[in-house]
Amino acid sequence: LRSAMAAWARAVRGLLLDVSGVLYDSGDGGGVPIAGSVEAVSRIKASGLKLRFCTNETQATREQFVKKLRGLGFDISVAEVTAPAPAACRILKERNLRPHLLVHDDLVPEFAGIDKANPNCVVIGDAAENFTYANLNEAFRVLIGMEKPVLISLGRGRYYKETDGLKLDVGAYMKALEYACDIEAEVVGKPAKRFFESALAEMGVPAQQAIMIGDDIVNDVGGAQQCGMRALQVRTGKYRPCDENHPQVKPEAYVNNLAEAVDVILQQM
Amino acid sequence: LRSAMAAWARAVRGLLLDVSGVLYDSGDGGGVPIAGSVEAVSRIKASGLKLRFCTNETQATREQFVKKLRGLGFDISVAEVTAPAPAACRILKERNLRPHLLVHDDLVPEFAGIDKANPNCVVIGDAAENFTYANLNEAFRVLIGMEKPVLISLGRGRYYKETDGLKLDVGAYMKALEYACDIEAEVVGKPAKRFFESALAEMGVPAQQAIMIGDDIVNDVGGAQQCGMRALQVRTGKYRPCDENHPQVKPEAYVNNLAEAVDVILQQM
Repeated sequence: LRSAMAAWARAVRGLLLDVSGVLYDSGDGGGVPIAGSVEAVSRIKASGLKLRFCTNETQATREQFVKKLRGLGFDISVAEVTAPAPAACRILKERNLRPHLLVHDDLVPEFAGIDKANPNCVVIGDAAENFTYANLNEAFRVLIGMEKPVLISLGRGRYYKETDGLKLDVGAYMKALEYACDIEAEVVGKPAKRFFESALAEMGVPAQQAIMIGDDIVNDVGGAQQCGMRALQVRTGKYRPCDENHPQVKPEAYVNNLAEAVDVILQQM
Repeated sequence: LRSAMAAWARAVRGLLLDVSGVLYDSGDGGGVPIAGSVEAVSRIKASGLKLRFCTNETQATREQFVKKLRGLGFDISVAEVTAPAPAACRILKERNLRPHLLVHDDLVPEFAGIDKANPNCVVIGDAAENFTYANLNEAFRVLIGMEKPVLISLGRGRYYKETDGLKLDVGAYMKALEYACDIEAEVVGKPAKRFFESALAEMGVPAQQAIMIGDDIVNDVGGAQQCGMRALQVRTGKYRPCDENHPQVKPEAYVNNLAEAVDVILQQM
């Protein structure tokens, strides 16, 4: 592990951290921190490395999300978070799109400044309990009624781990609507290149000097590598042993958890 | 239209009819017959042509389904219906599969003779209101917990029309589970070749002498043609004008409704 990283890790100036499955496992009551992750974040900040939290979580506004993580003991602020909903809002404004929202109730305030009358697109996020049969039919009818249906998806994750088990993520429902309408969604959030690039720009570090640390082999590791970043996969969160045989994607290294990743990176510096 | 059919229609000995969108539009209170369809079925029976109803509907047992259609005035019996659930039961028994069912409550009796303890596959049908967030997560967890997940889908329709609007069909939810588990479902029902072949065998007519009449360009028309049948698309049910520009599938002819299809076919005989 250490020798695999030695050659390039000395040049590292910034870290992008996935949040759910890396910092904490989400679930009822806010979830629980993953052992060693609170201290790992503090050590990154003390090291002088730049740091940015790059999440696809769309069950809350960034303010609520950060409040929850601070409650779990993490040193994190809203200004350090790159998340899909604000990125989607920029796209909606650029293209004069008025969304029908199929999102979590707690995410709706992120779209407060957006005109939602007479919708000409659908925005889908991790709506969780809002993924009802009725709500999916409604989003479908909005799409199928358009001459050229526009579906914007806040991420394309397959599933994630909560304290009470695995849950289907937005990507599964995105696929359902894509298939029903015979369209392809535009993905905002990881693994979209534009999303990683905005996180890097906000951090002020070029891709070649940044490491992404995540639990998702495709959306974290694969997405970051396609932008020219290095990437580590943690064996926490949604990690499964079969990820290590993924036919397309191979991280620079596997680490047991964020704490070990930080150990290894700081020792190279 | 008539000249397009003249060359081969004289040899026709049997008709396969899709039901929802051809005989009637489903919906609350049982739905409503499509104008002229009750008489069209009677005329087919009086003509001496063989007839079989080939449906992907999985919201009820065949007994309930036939009772509903008889209530709408159709001359139909259980023995004339080819439906996905009995076909799935044959496969489950052949392969010693014990299903976790994600289906409509009213379909469950079709699986009465099947061992469902300690499931080693998931069977998904048009579960309608049973497509809850909780039920989809449960089916997903059963699948992702298997070494080789087996998902059997009762059809792969995108959507269908009820009296109160379009509804997502089983295919959309099948795609969600396929994507989440990175697997491909086995489809029972139209457009599976084996399903059409069993309908033809039950009718006792070879594919070359049979016509499929349906409202679904892919699952009715395309599926039947791949089995060597001719196929007509009706402009009722889920038919949309853009179906007539489908890049892959072209029916032998379009007809306004079942009544017109029967007019044309009987005139050729």
